[in-house]
Amino acid sequence: DIHAFGPARATIQGQPLSDSEVEAMDAFFRACNYLAVGMIYLLDNPLLKEPLKPEHIKKRLLGHWGSSPGLAFCYLHLNRIIKKYQQEVIFLAGPGHGAPGVLAPVYLEGSYTEIYHNISEDAHGLKKFFKQFSFPGGIGSHCTPETPGSIHEGGELGYVLSHACGAAFDNPDLIVAAVVGDGEAETGPLATSWHVNKFLNPARDGAVLPILNLNGYKINNPTILARIPHQDLESYFRGLGYEPCFVEGSDRPSMHQAMAATLDYCVTRIKEIQRAAREEGVTTLPRWPMIVLRTPKGWTGPAQVNGHKVEGFWRSHQVPLADVHTNPENLKLLENWLRSYRPEELFDENGTFRPELKALAPTGNYRMGMNPHANGGLLRKDLKMPDFRQYGITFEKPAQIEVENTRPLGVFLRDVMRNNPTNFRVFGPDETTSNKLNAIYEVSKKFWIAEYFEEDADGGELSPNGRVIEMLSEHTMEGMLEGYLLTGRHGFFSTYESFVHVIDSMFNQHAKWLSICNELSWRADIASLNLLITSTVWRQDHNGFTHQDPGFLDIVCNKSAKVTRIYLPPDVNSLLSVADHCLRSKNYVNVIVSDKQLHLQYMTMDQAIVHCTKGLGIWDWASNDEGCEPDLVMASAGDIPTQEALAAIALLRQEFPELKIRYINVVDLFKLQPETEHPHGLSDRDFDSLFTLDRPIIFNFHGYPWLIHRLTYRRHNHRNLHVRGYKEKGNINTPLELAINNEIDRFSLAIDAIDRLPGLQVAGAHAKEKFRNMQIEARNYAYEYGVDKPEFSHWTWPF
Amino acid sequence: DIHAFGPARATIQGQPLSDSEVEAMDAFFRACNYLAVGMIYLLDNPLLKEPLKPEHIKKRLLGHWGSSPGLAFCYLHLNRIIKKYQQEVIFLAGPGHGAPGVLAPVYLEGSYTEIYHNISEDAHGLKKFFKQFSFPGGIGSHCTPETPGSIHEGGELGYVLSHACGAAFDNPDLIVAAVVGDGEAETGPLATSWHVNKFLNPARDGAVLPILNLNGYKINNPTILARIPHQDLESYFRGLGYEPCFVEGSDRPSMHQAMAATLDYCVTRIKEIQRAAREEGVTTLPRWPMIVLRTPKGWTGPAQVNGHKVEGFWRSHQVPLADVHTNPENLKLLENWLRSYRPEELFDENGTFRPELKALAPTGNYRMGMNPHANGGLLRKDLKMPDFRQYGITFEKPAQIEVENTRPLGVFLRDVMRNNPTNFRVFGPDETTSNKLNAIYEVSKKFWIAEYFEEDADGGELSPNGRVIEMLSEHTMEGMLEGYLLTGRHGFFSTYESFVHVIDSMFNQHAKWLSICNELSWRADIASLNLLITSTVWRQDHNGFTHQDPGFLDIVCNKSAKVTRIYLPPDVNSLLSVADHCLRSKNYVNVIVSDKQLHLQYMTMDQAIVHCTKGLGIWDWASNDEGCEPDLVMASAGDIPTQEALAAIALLRQEFPELKIRYINVVDLFKLQPETEHPHGLSDRDFDSLFTLDRPIIFNFHGYPWLIHRLTYRRHNHRNLHVRGYKEKGNINTPLELAINNEIDRFSLAIDAIDRLPGLQVAGAHAKEKFRNMQIEARNYAYEYGVDKPEFSHWTWPF
Ligand SMILES: Cc1ncc(C[n+]2csc(CCOP(=O)(O)OP(=O)(O)O)c2C)c(N)n1
Ligand SMILES: Cc1ncc(C[n+]2csc(CCOP(=O)(O)OP(=O)(O)O)c2C)c(N)n1
Ligand SMILES: [Mg+2]
Ligand SMILES: [Mg+2]
Repeated sequence: DIHAFGPARATIQGQPLSDSEVEAMDAFFRACNYLAVGMIYLLDNPLLKEPLKPEHIKKRLLGHWGSSPGLAFCYLHLNRIIKKYQQEVIFLAGPGHGAPGVLAPVYLEGSYTEIYHNISEDAHGLKKFFKQFSFPGGIGSHCTPETPGSIHEGGELGYVLSHACGAAFDNPDLIVAAVVGDGEAETGPLATSWHVNKFLNPARDGAVLPILNLNGYKINNPTILARIPHQDLESYFRGLGYEPCFVEGSDRPSMHQAMAATLDYCVTRIKEIQRAAREEGVTTLPRWPMIVLRTPKGWTGPAQVNGHKVEGFWRSHQVPLADVHTNPENLKLLENWLRSYRPEELFDENGTFRPELKALAPTGNYRMGMNPHANGGLLRKDLKMPDFRQYGITFEKPAQIEVENTRPLGVFLRDVMRNNPTNFRVFGPDETTSNKLNAIYEVSKKFWIAEYFEEDADGGELSPNGRVIEMLSEHTMEGMLEGYLLTGRHGFFSTYESFVHVIDSMFNQHAKWLSICNELSWRADIASLNLLITSTVWRQDHNGFTHQDPGFLDIVCNKSAKVTRIYLPPDVNSLLSVADHCLRSKNYVNVIVSDKQLHLQYMTMDQAIVHCTKGLGIWDWASNDEGCEPDLVMASAGDIPTQEALAAIALLRQEFPELKIRYINVVDLFKLQPETEHPHGLSDRDFDSLFTLDRPIIFNFHGYPWLIHRLTYRRHNHRNLHVRGYKEKGNINTPLELAINNEIDRFSLAIDAIDRLPGLQVAGAHAKEKFRNMQIEARNYAYEYGVDKPEFSHWTWPF
Repeated sequence: DIHAFGPARATIQGQPLSDSEVEAMDAFFRACNYLAVGMIYLLDNPLLKEPLKPEHIKKRLLGHWGSSPGLAFCYLHLNRIIKKYQQEVIFLAGPGHGAPGVLAPVYLEGSYTEIYHNISEDAHGLKKFFKQFSFPGGIGSHCTPETPGSIHEGGELGYVLSHACGAAFDNPDLIVAAVVGDGEAETGPLATSWHVNKFLNPARDGAVLPILNLNGYKINNPTILARIPHQDLESYFRGLGYEPCFVEGSDRPSMHQAMAATLDYCVTRIKEIQRAAREEGVTTLPRWPMIVLRTPKGWTGPAQVNGHKVEGFWRSHQVPLADVHTNPENLKLLENWLRSYRPEELFDENGTFRPELKALAPTGNYRMGMNPHANGGLLRKDLKMPDFRQYGITFEKPAQIEVENTRPLGVFLRDVMRNNPTNFRVFGPDETTSNKLNAIYEVSKKFWIAEYFEEDADGGELSPNGRVIEMLSEHTMEGMLEGYLLTGRHGFFSTYESFVHVIDSMFNQHAKWLSICNELSWRADIASLNLLITSTVWRQDHNGFTHQDPGFLDIVCNKSAKVTRIYLPPDVNSLLSVADHCLRSKNYVNVIVSDKQLHLQYMTMDQAIVHCTKGLGIWDWASNDEGCEPDLVMASAGDIPTQEALAAIALLRQEFPELKIRYINVVDLFKLQPETEHPHGLSDRDFDSLFTLDRPIIFNFHGYPWLIHRLTYRRHNHRNLHVRGYKEKGNINTPLELAINNEIDRFSLAIDAIDRLPGLQVAGAHAKEKFRNMQIEARNYAYEYGVDKPEFSHWTWPF
């Protein structure tokens, strides 16, 4: 049977609760539901001491009732478990729009008041608690950062299991309960994240306990998983490697029994799995338990409204009774609904939750609203950092030798991993080796706990103790990393540039979370999210057009300047310096763009440190304007664009030895913005002295060119700024040919310069011809041999 | 057993092939593999007529061998099915990087030469075919648009099943074979898209035949599904509602038998399911067959290289033998590998594929490389459009009445649906009603074929004949729509603005696909992808910060101007006019931004048509600069920004009756770009006369403000352009409060104007004070009552 109503039907049999326990738990449940309805509707008369009148009701009725009872039911049953087993649990609400179902028990357990003193545990506080919900100047209707105990807002659906898994990593004593919405379960990110069970080590990590709240509906539709045969649903979760425990029905006493028995069983199973791993050294994939909780959507709410089914139907998704201001019948219905929870039995004269009921919740930091893991900054320890200078490379002269930029970073990360064996992790969608960070495996392999084959021993780099996490899901990697950081740890994520767009929306949501946290004094600082974007556009010439998209930076720039940082280190030493800085930083998303292929090396370690600290600067050795004003400013950001800009300078100086060119390299992109827009922004004075007030500037950019305009349009010399970048002209090309197609190549830049230098517009015609011929020659060579002419691809600085 | 080697193990028993058939099919398979290796390595000596020498080898070795044999194996077995049952089949390669495995049989069946005459069916053509692969000036290494028969590039992994399902819709006689990579299966979008079986109507739609190619590996890792117990894998697919048919092993004769028997079975099952639905009217969810094909990665390739396992291991992912130029041993190994396919038996003296083998492939349009469904524009029929003017609203004066903008659009779409009952579909992630398009259900319900409950009859709007597709997966909706369009049909997708970012990367890939198709004369025009972005930032005040993100437009602007269009119609009539235009257009992605809430109505239908045709223009009734030069230009794009801009004009004119203000409304965003940048761009002359050369412009924008700068930075009067838009200042607010926080409100705009009008900088001080006071008053009112003051929220144009 796949209906949600009736006496409990459960996989795990047992009646662990006494009658009075059932009664007490149901009273707690009623209190939660009362509060949830109160939050949605009430402006005043919080305890219904007087008959309900229109003026007690909020003018604008907002909030999601349907999800709330299921969440509260889980929460209060987890409370029992916490107390019974002295078990640390945190709570993640996948359908975070059901915040009333979370805020209610958080308030009832006292956590809310402990953090927000003005929301006291009495009628006065309750009134404020109701009013502020989804109210201007108040709090949101999702499990926002303002919610004590929340590390998962659930505004955008799909990430609750990956967040939960990240939270469970390296927290061996923690159970992370994750309620999954059955609508949420239809999203791609959620659907694949059931596989988190393949990434948890029962010896070392905590457990994730997924609770699928099969309330049957989304906003306006049934859910798929609620409407397939019971046996299929069971097969599905078995196939995913779980032991599904069903708890189905609507009859409250039997449902309390069933849920309590089921949770008892799950905790026991989890502990048994962990014991086997910890004491007996079992290292095979365990069959973790999970719960399928099938309950009516809007459980305990009005069965019908105006003759239409509401409880157990999608109509209960948001505000089931709408026109309560003007329709006295509905107002009465609302009053009856509220009174059905018998508030007078739940709260004392002052409106304080009765102590014998409150006693059902744990106390202190065992309360899920106060668990320090859910305010992870409290537990955060600085990384023990090796000295990044040791991983740099040395050379005689700039721009003479080529090194794969990401490889030494891999060695550095290896030692970060070595120094921090329990609070640092590296994530990648099957690309850590492809991205040349594989030195990490010398210290820690890729985690693998599913079946092994003999051949894995030769180069597989797999281990059930590995701390590198790889799965072909950018969503899951990002979600795990977020969960790991939000619970106070550190991490690093590398991914292909074009496919980082897969997680645009996850980045957006995390950046929003961080910027709200900045304003909450009680939320402790967490480590930044460090994202290495590699296999970049300019060297995805072979994979072609689909792999060329540097537009993630445009997305990043849309988010608050307080939480966003972008770096484009052009060589090994600058990449190391930037990475070191990022790994130490807090509360940001740091985006580092650096390709993995062979690239010219420009800066010694000392130079790199100074340069990265400034964020941008003149490279003297590449400039010849010292002591005079430049005729032209050439600037660049990114590895290949820098190489081409320098080569253009060389071409120009060879043709026009008199020409004075200043070269500026930009590592920290936000330096370009005014200081009023971004904390890293250069003052106008500094910008003007670098970029001049009136000389032509040619800026060779890694990404889409207009981003540079967007950052600099307020600068004085913006009118003379000419930007080159990627403009969607790609296919199968050699690197130089791809550069030529998009006009970021040395020849195009040199021609751009000639066109913009009044003194050369006529005299430069011969040089322009020459450069054009060289472009044609380059292309012809590529078409014949499939590679660039060595003199171009292995170009070095000639002066 | 979960190993890939050995004699075939199969769910479906049977040996349908004669020995000579096995031999012939294996010869075809050898030819495919020979060609695949040839594409990766050979520049010359295509038939190995002479011993292999370094100069025959490409300098840069590119391409993905590992995926190719599995794809080719599926392709050639599907050929048999096509012939045997006269069954139309198209082929989608999920792991599209295995293009050699697709290009090879497409060439062998003659399709390639039919489209690209210069790649002839002889040694000469073969040599070119090899050279061009992943070679500068040649073709890509994925199933790019250049690949005959491809509608799925597979560069970004995850979308093959949703594409396949879209292709199958309303094509009752088609089987869409979709090979899913086992790595790909780990992505979120793919994982949830197994549920496409819940959206196919066996009476009306074709079938999707998923073939999971469990080759065990990704780039550098085993895959999850290849390393879980066999029974779990089976449970997983049963749970998803399929009948999984396993074909596992590496022994070629028995694998050919097993695959043939299995495909026979699958086709028979598919036909039986369809017959039951079509002849007996069965309308329950069928258990469609699917295939799990477990074969070694890089099957038939070198077993070992330099002592390391290659065949059946991740090492075969790309180019298994690397240093063939310099290492004679490896060159020899390569030669042996190539010769192991016995090319001399496969090609005649001229290098032409032997006719008796070619005869295994179908002919004409039955060839999967030539199937018109895979060049869908060939089958595309114009929509029968109702007259959109009939759906408009009428009113006396502009800016007096409020209407929900998307509702009449729903009525219009309903009639488009009615007129086009077999080639138009509407998609939405559970939001069609929420987005107020539910009038569509009057003509066609939401498709639902899983279990029904009694209550569904009251408002459920579900039907097994519905043509509206709703699932809580933006990925699946987008993928289905793309598949539907690519096979020559029409569609419409509506989604919440903030969560459209979930499919940023899918949009990117589709836009790239379209822009390449523009350059292929043989690809026929397809219908545009129409995306309605609604529930927009300015009315997501109640859902809060997570639901506020208008940044998708920034992503759209990164893509080729040839394929991107953005419209921001501010009212009902303009929305209808834009929607009509979009539904008639071809080869674009049309993004329409329009909120679903009550908004002021500005344009009569006739005015709207003229305005939308121009794309932007002065609204005379809102301007008072006729016959003279304006002091100020006020412009806006979007519904709420337009309302606020007009209210600001009213405030200014009330305070300063002498002030001459020109108001410009922008519907077609790309009008702002120079005509050299976008085909819609205004000439500088037109832009200058509208926006003046020297007057201050205040532009109130729907999205992030810098996008307007990015589009206009080349315009003469850009230095006087002042843009307001969303800047990440949101929480739970009233609409006006949200506007105030981001300074797009009437008061902020009026203050901005005063600050920029030299004549008012002193005299305007009093007015500025007044406006600031009104902001404070507005906020206080909101904090007290939870709604905006009616005089603000129901503001109307006063003149
Ligand atoms: C990615 C995404 N798409 C769409 C939405 C809009 N939305 C909000 S709630 C909801 C339905 C959620 O259903 P379910 O997960 O079953 O939660 P329930 O309310 O039933 O607990 C949808 C589609 C969203 N929040 N996120
Ligand atoms: C979304 C996405 N992430 C990452 C990649 C990079 N990538 C290319 S191929 C590949 C492995 C694919 O494995 P599988 O699907 O098993 O295909 P196979 O080559 O084994 O046939 C990866 C991770 C990609 N193409 N798309
Ligand atoms: Mg639900
Ligand atoms: Mg694979």
